[in-house]
Amino acid sequence: MKAVGVIVEYNPFHNGHKFHLEQAKVISGSEIVICVMSGNFLQRGEPALVSKWNRTEMALLAGADLVFELPYRFATQNADIFANGAVSLLEASGCDSICFGSESGDIEAFINTLDFLEKHDAEFQQQVKEQISLGVSYPKAAALSFKKLSPEQDSDLLDLSKPNNILGLQYVSAIRKQKSGMTPITIARKSAEYHDENFASETIASATSIRKSLFSNHGSPENIRPFMPQSSFELLEKYKQQFGCFHSWENYWPLLKYKLLQTSPEEMRNIHGVEEGLEHRLVSTALESDTFLAFMERVKTKRYTWTRLQRACLHILMNVKKAEMEDAQKSSYLRLLGMTNKGREYLQKEKKNLGLPLVSKTSANQRELELDIRASSIYSLGLQGREQRMLMKMEYSQPPIMIGANKKTS
Amino acid sequence: MKAVGVIVEYNPFHNGHKFHLEQAKVISGSEIVICVMSGNFLQRGEPALVSKWNRTEMALLAGADLVFELPYRFATQNADIFANGAVSLLEASGCDSICFGSESGDIEAFINTLDFLEKHDAEFQQQVKEQISLGVSYPKAAALSFKKLSPEQDSDLLDLSKPNNILGLQYVSAIRKQKSGMTPITIARKSAEYHDENFASETIASATSIRKSLFSNHGSPENIRPFMPQSSFELLEKYKQQFGCFHSWENYWPLLKYKLLQTSPEEMRNIHGVEEGLEHRLVSTALESDTFLAFMERVKTKRYTWTRLQRACLHILMNVKKAEMEDAQKSSYLRLLGMTNKGREYLQKEKKNLGLPLVSKTSANQRELELDIRASSIYSLGLQGREQRMLMKMEYSQPPIMIGANKKTS
Repeated sequence: MKAVGVIVEYNPFHNGHKFHLEQAKVISGSEIVICVMSGNFLQRGEPALVSKWNRTEMALLAGADLVFELPYRFATQNADIFANGAVSLLEASGCDSICFGSESGDIEAFINTLDFLEKHDAEFQQQVKEQISLGVSYPKAAALSFKKLSPEQDSDLLDLSKPNNILGLQYVSAIRKQKSGMTPITIARKSAEYHDENFASETIASATSIRKSLFSNHGSPENIRPFMPQSSFELLEKYKQQFGCFHSWENYWPLLKYKLLQTSPEEMRNIHGVEEGLEHRLVSTALESDTFLAFMERVKTKRYTWTRLQRACLHILMNVKKAEMEDAQKSSYLRLLGMTNKGREYLQKEKKNLGLPLVSKTSANQRELELDIRASSIYSLGLQGREQRMLMKMEYSQPPIMIGANKKTS
Repeated sequence: MKAVGVIVEYNPFHNGHKFHLEQAKVISGSEIVICVMSGNFLQRGEPALVSKWNRTEMALLAGADLVFELPYRFATQNADIFANGAVSLLEASGCDSICFGSESGDIEAFINTLDFLEKHDAEFQQQVKEQISLGVSYPKAAALSFKKLSPEQDSDLLDLSKPNNILGLQYVSAIRKQKSGMTPITIARKSAEYHDENFASETIASATSIRKSLFSNHGSPENIRPFMPQSSFELLEKYKQQFGCFHSWENYWPLLKYKLLQTSPEEMRNIHGVEEGLEHRLVSTALESDTFLAFMERVKTKRYTWTRLQRACLHILMNVKKAEMEDAQKSSYLRLLGMTNKGREYLQKEKKNLGLPLVSKTSANQRELELDIRASSIYSLGLQGREQRMLMKMEYSQPPIMIGANKKTS
C-alpha cells in the first residue's frame, strides 16, 4: 500500500489542510496519508488551541489515515530539529513520499537551493555569524546571508524570506541527511499566507487568522465556519463545550510567572533554550506583567524573536533541562494517536517493517514517553477542576482514535 | 530601657495577644515590648491571613513597640529550629526577658522538665526512636515517651501533650543552649486553647477559631469583632478591601499542583522537608485533587502530621533546597518591620549593642534577604493583577511601619 507523509500541526484544521491532504494523495499516487502531528505544544512554543486528540479526530475525518504524535523533543524546536525529527518518523512509518506546502511549489527549486547552500556552506555560515553578531535574529540572518550569496533573480533558487519555503528546505535537507528513500513533493499553498491575520479568500484562511478570530472579543465562532470542514468546526465547538475553553498562553501565565519567580538563576540557565543573560531579563519582566502578552512585548528584542522566546518560556514552564532534551533526542517512537480503517489495514501489513517502536498504550511506555506525558499534564493545567482531570486522564486512558471508513469523509 | 521579648505570629492579632503584651510588660517590669514575628508564611507551613505589614501594624497599635521579622529560615521550621532562631533574635535585640503564654503558666515546671529531660536524654531519645519506628509522628512520639519516663502525676513537671507547653519548653531550652542572659517568664493562656475551633468565651478566642469563622461561608466578619482590638479588626477589613482577599493555601493550590507535576523525583528529594518516598505520594495525589484541602486529606497518614506535610508543601512551593536551608541558617539579621516612637528611641540607644545586623532597607540587602524576598513574591501570587504587583512591590519599597505615640493604644 503506497503511503504519503505530511508534517502538520492542525491548529486548527482548515480547508487549506484538506486541500493539502487531497493533493498529497493524488500527486504521489498514494492510497493512504500518514500525518506526523505535533502534540499539545507547537513549534512556535505555544499550546495548541485544542488537545491532540481533538485535532487527530479533525485530521482523520478530513482525509488522513494515520496520525502519529511528533514527540515534544522534536515538536517544540527550531526548524532544523523539528524537520529532522518529523522526517525520521515518516521514514520509520514506511512512507514512499513526503508532501509539503510551500510558497514556491516547485521541488526543483528546493533541490537547487540545497545544492547551492551545500556548495557555499562556509561562506554562508560566515555571513550568518556576522549578521548575528550585529544583533539580528537567526531567521533574518539566514535570509539576508542567502540573499547576499545567491545570484540576483536566479529563478532556479528559492525565496528564503518565505516561512514555508524555509521549513520545506529543512524537510528536503533532512531527507538527504538521513539518506531516506522518500520522494519529496511540494505543492503551492493556496492563497493564504502563513502569517496572514485577516480573511482574504472566501474559503481559505490561515490558521493564524482563524485563531485570531476565535480569541477576539467580537469574533463569533460562526465567522470561521466557512474556512473549515464541517467536521472540524463541530469538533472545535465540542471541545469548547466539553472542556470550557480553548488553550492559549494566557491560561498558563500565572504558572509561568510563579515558575520564573521561584527558580534560581543557576537552575534557569540549565533549562533548554535559555541562553546567557536571558534568565534575569525574564524574571524582572515577569514581575511587572499581568498578562503573557504584556510580558512578551516587554521582553522581545531584535535579537530574540518572539518564537525563540516563546519556546524558551515553554521549556521553562515544562522544566525541561538542557541535558534532558539532548538525551531525549537520541531515541524516538511512533506514538499512534488515531487511524481510519484503511490506516489500520496499513499498520497491520507494515507492523514488522516499522523503523521505530510502535506505541499505542501510554501506561506501558511511561519512561520513554515521560516528556510527552509531562506536556499533557501541564497542558491540562490550562483548564479547571473536573475538565482538567478529564483531559489529564486521557493521556493514559485514551486509546488511539478510530474512525470507521463510512465516516471518513464528512 | 528594659525590654521584654515575645515570639508571635498574630494570625490575626486578637484580645488574647493584647493581654499577653500587657502582662509581659507588667510582669517583667519592662518599658517596651519587642516582637519577633513570622513573615508571610507561618510555622505550620501555611500563608498568613494577611501580609506581615498589616500584622505589624496590628501589633504596634495594640501594645508592641518594635517588630522584627523572624526570617523564613526559622519561621517555617519545627519547634526546635523555630525557637532557637526566634530566641537568638530577641537576644540580639537586647531583651532582658522573654515572655510566652503556656497552658502551665509556671516557669518552674519548664525548668524542672528541662532538667529532667537532660538527665534522661539517652532513654528519652531511645523511646522516641522506638515510637517513630512504630509509625507514630514525632510530636506524638515525644509526648508518649515523656509520659512513660516521668514519675506519675509529678506536678513539678509539664504536661507535654499541650502545644504551648511544648513550644515554651523549646524557648527555655534555646535560652539555655545559647547561654542567653534573658529571663524566661510564662503566663497562663486565657481560656482559649490553641486548637479550639469554636468561640468559648465572649472576648477571648483562638486565632484558629477566628480564621475558621473568616473563611466559613456563613461567617460574617462581624462575628469576630468581639475577639479583637478595634484597630486589628479595622486593619483586617482594610486588607480585604485593598488586596481583595485573605490568603489561604487554596490560593496557592494551582501553583503547588503545577510545581508537583513538573518537578523530577530527583529535584523533589532535594527540597527541604521532603523525605524518602514522600515525593511520589505527593505527585500522584496532586493529580486527583481539585483543592488543597482534598489533597492534604488524601496525603495525610499517621506518620506524617498535617503540619509536617504542609511545611514540606511550602518548601516545595518556594523551591527551597536542603543545602540552601542549611546554609541560610548559619546567618541571621534583625529585619525591622515596624516601631512606635518608644521603639525608635530604644533602637537609637541600643543600635551599637545589637548582636545582629539591623536591616531596614530590602534593596540594600537583597542577597541576605533572598529567601524572605522570595517568600513575599510567592505570597503575593495569591492575589490577582494590580493587587499582586502592589503587594510584591511593598517588599522593596515599604519602609518600617511607624506608629506615633499618640496613636499607640487604640
